[in-house]
Amino acid sequence: MCPADQTVATNNDHLVQSEDPEHPANLIPELCRKFYNWGWVTGTGGGTSIRQGDHIFIAPSGVQKELMQPDNIFVLQWPTPKYPASDRNYIRKPLKLNPSACTPLFLTAFEQGAGCCIHTHSQWAVLVTLLVEREKGPDACFEISNIEQIKGIPRGKGKGMLGFFDTLKIPIIENTAFEEDLTSGLEAAMNKYPDTYAVLVRRHGIYVWGDNTAKAKTQCESLDYIFQLAVEMHKLGLPWVK
Amino acid sequence: MCPADQTVATNNDHLVQSEDPEHPANLIPELCRKFYNWGWVTGTGGGTSIRQGDHIFIAPSGVQKELMQPDNIFVLQWPTPKYPASDRNYIRKPLKLNPSACTPLFLTAFEQGAGCCIHTHSQWAVLVTLLVEREKGPDACFEISNIEQIKGIPRGKGKGMLGFFDTLKIPIIENTAFEEDLTSGLEAAMNKYPDTYAVLVRRHGIYVWGDNTAKAKTQCESLDYIFQLAVEMHKLGLPWVK
Amino acid sequence: MCPADQTVATNNDHLVQSEDPEHPANLIPELCRKFYNWGWVTGTGGGTSIRQGDHIFIAPSGVQKELMQPDNIFVLQWPTPKYPASDRNYIRKPLKLNPSACTPLFLTAFEQGAGCCIHTHSQWAVLVTLLVEREKGPDACFEISNIEQIKGIPRGKGKGMLGFFDTLKIPIIENTAFEEDLTSGLEAAMNKYPDTYAVLVRRHGIYVWGDNTAKAKTQCESLDYIFQLAVEMHKLGLPWVK
Amino acid sequence: MCPADQTVATNNDHLVQSEDPEHPANLIPELCRKFYNWGWVTGTGGGTSIRQGDHIFIAPSGVQKELMQPDNIFVLQWPTPKYPASDRNYIRKPLKLNPSACTPLFLTAFEQGAGCCIHTHSQWAVLVTLLVEREKGPDACFEISNIEQIKGIPRGKGKGMLGFFDTLKIPIIENTAFEEDLTSGLEAAMNKYPDTYAVLVRRHGIYVWGDNTAKAKTQCESLDYIFQLAVEMHKLGLPWVK
Repeated sequence: MCPADQTVATNNDHLVQSEDPEHPANLIPELCRKFYNWGWVTGTGGGTSIRQGDHIFIAPSGVQKELMQPDNIFVLQWPTPKYPASDRNYIRKPLKLNPSACTPLFLTAFEQGAGCCIHTHSQWAVLVTLLVEREKGPDACFEISNIEQIKGIPRGKGKGMLGFFDTLKIPIIENTAFEEDLTSGLEAAMNKYPDTYAVLVRRHGIYVWGDNTAKAKTQCESLDYIFQLAVEMHKLGLPWVK
Repeated sequence: MCPADQTVATNNDHLVQSEDPEHPANLIPELCRKFYNWGWVTGTGGGTSIRQGDHIFIAPSGVQKELMQPDNIFVLQWPTPKYPASDRNYIRKPLKLNPSACTPLFLTAFEQGAGCCIHTHSQWAVLVTLLVEREKGPDACFEISNIEQIKGIPRGKGKGMLGFFDTLKIPIIENTAFEEDLTSGLEAAMNKYPDTYAVLVRRHGIYVWGDNTAKAKTQCESLDYIFQLAVEMHKLGLPWVK
Repeated sequence: MCPADQTVATNNDHLVQSEDPEHPANLIPELCRKFYNWGWVTGTGGGTSIRQGDHIFIAPSGVQKELMQPDNIFVLQWPTPKYPASDRNYIRKPLKLNPSACTPLFLTAFEQGAGCCIHTHSQWAVLVTLLVEREKGPDACFEISNIEQIKGIPRGKGKGMLGFFDTLKIPIIENTAFEEDLTSGLEAAMNKYPDTYAVLVRRHGIYVWGDNTAKAKTQCESLDYIFQLAVEMHKLGLPWVK
Repeated sequence: MCPADQTVATNNDHLVQSEDPEHPANLIPELCRKFYNWGWVTGTGGGTSIRQGDHIFIAPSGVQKELMQPDNIFVLQWPTPKYPASDRNYIRKPLKLNPSACTPLFLTAFEQGAGCCIHTHSQWAVLVTLLVEREKGPDACFEISNIEQIKGIPRGKGKGMLGFFDTLKIPIIENTAFEEDLTSGLEAAMNKYPDTYAVLVRRHGIYVWGDNTAKAKTQCESLDYIFQLAVEMHKLGLPWVK
């Protein structure tokens, strides 16, 4: 056990201790190892959070993602509105670690009903935000159609999945100096695109959420596949929308 | 054991339980883990099916491919013609899962004598279908010659392998809204190209089959190598056919 | 144990059975697993052979490289000149497998004093052969200078390693319909470039050898790094020779 | 145990024997395995060194990085100035191995207060040095701004991390025939850019250091991410500085 994460007995360590591989405190490190190998969370970038009942499990900030352990995980009581951001009531907190700077953005996704939210610094996502800006201007969203993989993205909450002939649209917001200041931009994008399950952040990466952990993860994979394909299509002079 | 896959005793669970790593119910999850790492079955895309004697083993739909387990596998009685598609007689079915939407396409390959059929969403396959359409029109097939790796693809059933100086031709069919509706296009391509062991699907991916599992898998690898090489050759202005 | 590889007691199975991970029959499968993950031996392509004393260990043909086992390995008595190619005297032969089609080429390298020879279908090697042909003609060799990694390639037998300011030259031979027919081209290239430890084969891949297994493997890695870099340099309009 | 590394009892083997995975003699091989998989230390290229108290742990030269073992590690007494380079006092030395040729460069970083120094041959780093030279001349440094990942790089010793709107600058020095001759160039770059935690070496790779091992490793990852992104941006005609 890493001394940095030793916690007092009153720190609710039991909340992150489980033999069940599907327990959020086990799933988050497992997902982060995969994301590290995909190049999504290089250099401690990115983050992941899972909501289970009235508990929100959050990866710490600044930890090497492939080395994360269950006892590095924060737990927050849900719903959070009663806890102002300034003194958020963590019911389980690893000593000497800070919660992910993405926490307010994760909470925004959970308020929309998400069960899991993933933030990556995928280079394909970053390149797509730059190409959209140059080709269609700063207010344009990413659009692509007639690609089978878009069937892996929901049409909206309870509306089933997109079809092959539909156009996938992912809003893009501008980056800010501090990650937490992205929250209002994220909320605005969610209001403008109420059916979206993802928001791109220019020159930064993407936030993807899903009704549960498996959906958030597979939707994040599908989007990353689509962004990589879109960059390669652009290099080859192939248009994104048929 | 995942509760979602608990099945009643009468559900022939023994058909997917074996200590033999070469058993189809063990091979399919093992193959899917490899395919996941190659980026072929991102976001639950793609699928795999193996025929062994009069049993067809089929991967489920919507399952994370790298997490698939033997008890997620469906078993269908073969030959299937006596079972109309509307009430296909699965002799082993995991509860709460659906069989792969690719099932009718897998059956089409098995009717040609295949022992295994693999469907991937490989980006190289998708890019090749787009390049062929732009450069040679919607009716053209993919063609390449004078590349050593084409010797990994059969010349046709019982005809040995292609030679270095031969031209590999892979037909391309248009995608449809629903995966099962690809069946007639696949059959038409098989009729037009009776020697082919693969059919590309525009903006979607590829179906590859083989006389047995090892052949289907290695042929799928060889084709993917060839498509990746072809895309890089195109970027560098190098023609595909000498 | 795979029944396909069961061999009679008189088949010298002890030659491929060792607890020592450095034994050639253990090293070849271990190397092939790595090469598979690098994309060098896709679809059963490529091969590897090690000489230890008067025994030559050879990977089989047509086996999935990442699944190779010690009992798949052939052993040939060395020196071989006394055994004409038509009835080469294998002192250990797995039943139902054939030795690598690269065997005559491996033997050519061993006649030059090599301790290990590796053959890959690396796409970077293939692309480099095509770029050299187009840019400098069919008789040109690959040349690059002023890249730190060329210090990983020997200047010639017993001559130390290349320096940063030296020019690395790798001859390129034309491919043939049958792998064994490459032998005379390989020998001619070795005569013309007596200091080379590698020969590129146009539209096919590369043969790399070394004084021992570690050297062959690390030289193969260094060359592949250099070819990948060279292709990317070409895409960016950066010349290979300063 | 590899006979090549057997050492006499007086050779302080206890300095590299520990059950603690965080011990430098265990960490260096573990890091090198990761770096090998990222393609940073291909063909025995690159190196890693960690300072712990008054001991400096150094990877050997010419060893396959993914196979490195704790007993391959050299230990040097710190501070070293009292030991002239000609007879550096290694307090633990594996027999038959030589210390990394990068040693003088690692020491230069440790003199600046680093706790760990990493040297890679990353292709992205090499390509960036070539693009900067062509686009901005031989004296220019690499510059990029408005990319989230630059927040993973310190602004300077004790000055916190760079912000999103800051410009990351990494000096580039020319390569030399012998690795140890890079030392004066490295020192000059450190003097000119006293806040830098990394120096690129043209046509060679990069040296990255950090206050401790985790920081050196994550900063190296962040820089490599940035270089890869920069090369892709260049291919797509996207400027590095906004």
